[in-house]
Amino acid sequence: MNSPFNDIKEEVEKELRLIFDQRKSIPEKLHESMAYSVFAGGKRLRPILVVAGAEAVGGQRASAMPVAAAFELIHTYTLIHDDLPAMDDDDLRRGMPTNHKKFGEATAILAGDGLLTLAFEVLSEPHATPSSVNAEIRLKIINNVAKAVGALGTVGGQEVDMASEDQKRSDNDLEILEYIHTRKTGAMITAAVVSGGMIGGANSEQISALERYGNGIGHAFQIVDDILDVTQTTHNLGKPAGSDTENIKLTYPAIIGLDESRKLAKTQIEVALSALEIFGDAGKPLAGLARYIEERSH
Amino acid sequence: MNSPFNDIKEEVEKELRLIFDQRKSIPEKLHESMAYSVFAGGKRLRPILVVAGAEAVGGQRASAMPVAAAFELIHTYTLIHDDLPAMDDDDLRRGMPTNHKKFGEATAILAGDGLLTLAFEVLSEPHATPSSVNAEIRLKIINNVAKAVGALGTVGGQEVDMASEDQKRSDNDLEILEYIHTRKTGAMITAAVVSGGMIGGANSEQISALERYGNGIGHAFQIVDDILDVTQTTHNLGKPAGSDTENIKLTYPAIIGLDESRKLAKTQIEVALSALEIFGDAGKPLAGLARYIEERSH
Repeated sequence: MNSPFNDIKEEVEKELRLIFDQRKSIPEKLHESMAYSVFAGGKRLRPILVVAGAEAVGGQRASAMPVAAAFELIHTYTLIHDDLPAMDDDDLRRGMPTNHKKFGEATAILAGDGLLTLAFEVLSEPHATPSSVNAEIRLKIINNVAKAVGALGTVGGQEVDMASEDQKRSDNDLEILEYIHTRKTGAMITAAVVSGGMIGGANSEQISALERYGNGIGHAFQIVDDILDVTQTTHNLGKPAGSDTENIKLTYPAIIGLDESRKLAKTQIEVALSALEIFGDAGKPLAGLARYIEERSH
Repeated sequence: MNSPFNDIKEEVEKELRLIFDQRKSIPEKLHESMAYSVFAGGKRLRPILVVAGAEAVGGQRASAMPVAAAFELIHTYTLIHDDLPAMDDDDLRRGMPTNHKKFGEATAILAGDGLLTLAFEVLSEPHATPSSVNAEIRLKIINNVAKAVGALGTVGGQEVDMASEDQKRSDNDLEILEYIHTRKTGAMITAAVVSGGMIGGANSEQISALERYGNGIGHAFQIVDDILDVTQTTHNLGKPAGSDTENIKLTYPAIIGLDESRKLAKTQIEVALSALEIFGDAGKPLAGLARYIEERSH
């Protein structure tokens, strides 16, 4: 991603560093393990959405930073737990050993638990945001985040994702796939941009628009991820992924084909872009993010 | 525990049932797994502390119930994750299969994640408590809870506990043991009674007294647990636990002996009881709880 996102990304990195520097008394190996995954080179999409959401409604960037950082802490926790041997059993992430490969399974579980909890600590910190963000709004943000990442959100999506593996293909595949992605990825992406809006003092019409935008890009994001998975796998294996088995992983290309997947992603991005109209120029960074997501599919 | 704690316990059960009944749309196996461990017959010590803490300063029981339930959700999450194969690898808890034995490791990890998150959802619910508990105080409670259960609290204590296993005995044993217990158990026990006080509108002198009380019973609780572990193990094995190895688990009886452990528990209970003086008759339920903890050691 290019500027203005590089600026935001740099400030997010600083905020995250500050959070870890202030907590050196965490047991050393646990601190190291939590920091290892947080600073493993993520795109910082969710924090950028928080900041861009706040700025779209005229909010101050500084007041959005702690919430932005909290979203990245939660995102990192989900990656660590998803990679565990009992889950996806991944050895590598972004070319580096996964948390449990480097620190052991017990510490990886605890690092995830610690990051999730740290996010709620940051969200509720007494002086985390200027007094302009009142306590009622901050409680509402915490409630939204908890719902988005809990058993009816990310955690529930992961449960259904695990259960859907090694199942025979069925007529409900698209429905199950949408269920998984809406909760596992979409809920937190929408919560990020909506939380940003709430910090910036969005009215209910603006919140609705940010929700539509979040749902659109969240959906597109996952479709594009599936497209990249398949095209990369095809490239690496020299054959279409899953062509030799009935029990393939549920992905958009596997269910509706590559062309239809690209079309669906494009439609979702258009929905997202049209939701931004009410923000005028202030919505341009969010529009840029939406286009960046679509471009990844080409 | 006898009345008045039975009354509180019954109301806690009702509150927890309500929380689960309102969330039937959680994926079925995950809902079942979360509920299985929550309703596995715990003593509900932490919720009782929340309620008794609120009532000690003249607060209403009803306004304390959601916070009381949230503490039990968090406590249950710590038990599920502590029992995992990568942690203590326990097959049984309270005579029943542990969560991962019954539902598999992936679902057990997610059930713990889901319960932790659900606690923060309940703590931040818009109409969870009457308007008498203002948003600033509720944010402060969330912040206290997050600190108590995070990498500087429960999670950090568990990390050091895991690391201390299979270590040779050393001169620092008592220091390490106190580090583990203060964080792993003590922090949440203190946070429970202090949160109750905050809901009840405690002033700073009352909060300090509840902190001293919480620290005292938290410390005593763990010493008594260690005593029960050793005496039960001795009874079951027909020999003193750990007599045949240098690498025994750190416990108070193992480090300072059984008699000194009992004395230390008694002293801590006295500290807790003396902290209650400023509450007069309203502090009697908390005093009863302290005595209940001490009596378990006999």
